[in-house]
Formats: sequence, C-alpha cells, structure tokens
Amino acid sequence: MKKMLLAAAAVAGLMTALPAAAQFAKPEDAIKYRKAAFSVMASHFSRIGAMVNGRAPFDAKAAAENAEIAALMSRLPYTAFVEGTDKGETKAKPEVWSEGDKFKAGATRMQEEMAKLNAAAKTGNLETIKAAFGPVGQSCKSCHDNFRKE
Amino acid sequence: MKKMLLAAAAVAGLMTALPAAAQFAKPEDAIKYRKAAFSVMASHFSRIGAMVNGRAPFDAKAAAENAEIAALMSRLPYTAFVEGTDKGETKAKPEVWSEGDKFKAGATRMQEEMAKLNAAAKTGNLETIKAAFGPVGQSCKSCHDNFRKE
Repeated sequence: MKKMLLAAAAVAGLMTALPAAAQFAKPEDAIKYRKAAFSVMASHFSRIGAMVNGRAPFDAKAAAENAEIAALMSRLPYTAFVEGTDKGETKAKPEVWSEGDKFKAGATRMQEEMAKLNAAAKTGNLETIKAAFGPVGQSCKSCHDNFRKE
Repeated sequence: MKKMLLAAAAVAGLMTALPAAAQFAKPEDAIKYRKAAFSVMASHFSRIGAMVNGRAPFDAKAAAENAEIAALMSRLPYTAFVEGTDKGETKAKPEVWSEGDKFKAGATRMQEEMAKLNAAAKTGNLETIKAAFGPVGQSCKSCHDNFRKE
C-alpha cells in the first residue's frame, strides 16, 4: 500500500506537468482517449459509490485503491479537449470550447474534489469517505449538465 | 539507480495490491473497462514510440511521464477478462480463457517490460529508452497475435 501511494504521488506530481499541447494525430484519437480516461475513472469511482451506498460491503483497502486510481485518471482527459474535436463520436457540447473558462473551472473542481476523496479514502473511515463522495458526484453532474449532450 | 528501483517497486506494489475479483455489474461493463484501460495505455506508450522512432523530438520529462502512466495503466485491464466476457464488442479470442495460463503469462510479461521501460525512462537517456521500448512492443504483439481477433 505504501508503495502504491508512493507511485501515485509520483504520478500525481507528474500529471500537472503534462503538456497541454495536442498529442493526438487525429481528432478521433483525442475523442477516443478522453472517453477512455473518463470511463476508467468512472469505473473506479463507482466502486467507491457502491460502498458508500451500501450496495457493496465496505472494504477500506479497496476503497483507497479505487480512489487512488480515480484521482490519477481525473488528471488525464482534459488535454484531449483540443480544437476540432467537437464533432464525431463525442457528446461534448460546443460550450466546452465557447465557454472554455467555465469548462476548465468545472474540470478543476472535479479534480480537486476527487483529490479530496482520495485523501478521505486513505483514512479508512467510511463516514469520511461518504462526506467526500457527494461533492465529487456533484462536480461530475454539473459538467455533464452543462457540457455533455444527453 | 535507487530511484529507478524505487519507482519499479512502487509500480509493482500497485499491481499486486489491486483486487482481482470481478467488479463489473454486466459483461459489457468489463469489456468497456478493459478496452478503455488498454486504450489509455496505448496512447501514452505510443507517445514514447514517437520519440523512439524519431517522429517526435525527444523530451525526457514527457517520456518519463508517459512511461509512468503507461506502466500504471498496464496493471488495470486484466481483472476485466472475467468469464462471460468473450462475446459482444470484444476482439478477445476464446483462447484468453481456454489458454488462461498462457494469457496470464503474456500479461505479466507485458507488465514487466512496461515496468522496465518506466525505469528506463527515468534515466532520461534516449538510448536506454530505445532498448527498453522494443521488448514492450514485442510483448504487445505477442498477445495480439495469440489472443486478439483482427
């Protein structure tokens, strides 16, 4: 576990340093990448949700591992919202780009709430995790409402 | 060197700490998850490939960041090759399950080679990275040849 946290801390440090410049050969590559990153994040986040909502037994170690991965994943998708990726297999609304500052603020909020959930999960206390879980879900919903087509 | 070993150990720690139990409500959830994890891994691996093959300028920091993420991602997909996920939107051959030991060995080989690439990337030396890159690609190809439909 200690080793895992070490690795995660290393990656979390790196993540903020990731170049924002496009790293994608084609618009569809960027779309595929961001969807994949969100998808992996959502899987791990939802496993914590199952514990928070009583659909799965609480497992402190699993919660911490899932929070760690979800927090790492939360750093990845946004470099892929590059210009020209508003068409094709994406639910992104034009507002992602026309209201870029608002979108970025929402992304940052989600990343921050996810980081808090990650810290909460390390306590191993379910009530602490529950308290941190809701705000992440709200940050997800807020962006989906504003920036994602149904 | 100590740093390299630490990083490799950290990643190894993350790997073994991950629960192997199925965490997916439906077969299609598992399929979507493993494809997403492979996809994110491939994106970051290919960015190193671009530097190794001279299609992109060498950036030691970016190479290290991409290797770190790729190595972490390499640990994720295999928990999702659960029974009953051989149908639907997947290219997985039946051999994934009928030759499970061989598949697991291939997965482990890829994870190990990716961990070595991660350690190599931390040296900041392009030649060292080049030497470690090839074996990862070979481990990818080997599994694709044996376990993935074209």
